[in-house]
Amino acid sequence: MNTPVPETEGTPRLSINRWSCRTTGIQEFLEATAAAGIEAVGLWRQDVEEIGRDALRRRTDDAGLRVSSLCRGGFLTAAPAAERTAALDENRRAIDEAVALGAPTLVMVVGGLSREDKDVVAARGRVTEGIAALAPYAESAGITLSLEPMHPMFAADRSVLSTTHQALDIAEQVGSPAVGVVVDTYHVWWDPQLAGAIRRAAEADRLLAYQVCDWNLPLAAEPLFSRGYMGDGFVDFPAITTLIRDAGYRGDIEVEIFNEDVWATPVAESIRIIAERFEQLVLPHA
Amino acid sequence: MNTPVPETEGTPRLSINRWSCRTTGIQEFLEATAAAGIEAVGLWRQDVEEIGRDALRRRTDDAGLRVSSLCRGGFLTAAPAAERTAALDENRRAIDEAVALGAPTLVMVVGGLSREDKDVVAARGRVTEGIAALAPYAESAGITLSLEPMHPMFAADRSVLSTTHQALDIAEQVGSPAVGVVVDTYHVWWDPQLAGAIRRAAEADRLLAYQVCDWNLPLAAEPLFSRGYMGDGFVDFPAITTLIRDAGYRGDIEVEIFNEDVWATPVAESIRIIAERFEQLVLPHA
Repeated sequence: MNTPVPETEGTPRLSINRWSCRTTGIQEFLEATAAAGIEAVGLWRQDVEEIGRDALRRRTDDAGLRVSSLCRGGFLTAAPAAERTAALDENRRAIDEAVALGAPTLVMVVGGLSREDKDVVAARGRVTEGIAALAPYAESAGITLSLEPMHPMFAADRSVLSTTHQALDIAEQVGSPAVGVVVDTYHVWWDPQLAGAIRRAAEADRLLAYQVCDWNLPLAAEPLFSRGYMGDGFVDFPAITTLIRDAGYRGDIEVEIFNEDVWATPVAESIRIIAERFEQLVLPHA
Repeated sequence: MNTPVPETEGTPRLSINRWSCRTTGIQEFLEATAAAGIEAVGLWRQDVEEIGRDALRRRTDDAGLRVSSLCRGGFLTAAPAAERTAALDENRRAIDEAVALGAPTLVMVVGGLSREDKDVVAARGRVTEGIAALAPYAESAGITLSLEPMHPMFAADRSVLSTTHQALDIAEQVGSPAVGVVVDTYHVWWDPQLAGAIRRAAEADRLLAYQVCDWNLPLAAEPLFSRGYMGDGFVDFPAITTLIRDAGYRGDIEVEIFNEDVWATPVAESIRIIAERFEQLVLPHA
């Protein structure tokens, strides 16, 4: 289920995630990426909402870019029946959009807790049920669902899915070949079980995507925005990328940075830095 | 190795960690705790440094208080030989202080990474070596070392030990009965493997301490200070406390809150709130 990557020169596996340049208009983002010789982008549903999925597909094609993933589905932890139904409907729309954009996988941020219901075990159970309900639809659509373990500092408000092993447990319970995991260095670099979990994911053919950015300190006021250029923080990119490579992953590698300083940088310059750091710290080990 | 607790009325298992009232002078803190009918405190080395260990022991005894733990040893991740030797010496002094204070256990914050050395696997290895070097000294001294898994958001700067299973792996590798784990709700509430890890700790007689406080959002500018009164955040205290009880733990339960609002509250009032929340959310399940 890995993203097929053409054998070319340069850094064909580098994909720029749209959110790395979220303050730039979509057209300028696509053109700047293509102009840098980069061949793929990870897209977000916000652009679909703004310009429509067919227009977004056309613009991506016109720029000569492949789509490595779509962000994001998920948010499956609400308990009330009406909210759960609405969430499943929304996820089916996201799957349709991924198909329309030619994205092989939909990244799933599974959802957090509420102050009224702090039962994290029950919330995790609802995630598994939701993924089970969506998997047949993804299978029929011919795309995969990349469960994203998020850093535990987001467990309360964004994702009760915190580790790669936990994502694989859900995938195995669901039992669908369309369900797997995205390894994002920012979220999982600290995990003492990471090496074994990456091997387990690959052996089960569930290592669907690899996203990179650094873990910066001090944390930003909005901790999500502490994602940094590779090399600026504490992530050991050679070590993690070697684990990913040795597990057999040959797909795209997305750089996804949420960082107000990066967003304030002219897009051509931030993409240049991304590509440079990618070539220094990631590509030699990929 | 659990802390023996006398069978009395009220909340004999409640211990107030010194850092919950860090802005109050030590004498006032001890008197306010005793005046609230609380029988135990968790102490910090800063007070030892300020007034001396014998004076601190005398004041604690005079207030009629038991000492449930001493914070903290650890910081064993530095690579240079001189720093490692100094860290071991410092930890032996901390063990001596725990003995002098009558604390059954020394809480260990193992240390983080440096920007020069991001190899987290190697840093973890140095932690195991350091604990192995200290364990015989702790055994001779008749105290335990409580390895503290810290929330993964502190993995870079404070503790490469992030989960309870990981702490138990270290304890088993070291093989000493003096090495175990402290379960602190703030640090481990998100862990999908928590239930099994607590059982494993108890079965190995390595469940040495239980500390409680809530996980507040939004995170404070200094994330360590996002610890809150039980009930203010997202931790499911009945569920985790039930796991601890069912595993057989009968020792002290320390409330350890780092929070600037709590510190700005008059000490008698913050201790009253702590005791009230403890009786509501923790004690019925303990």
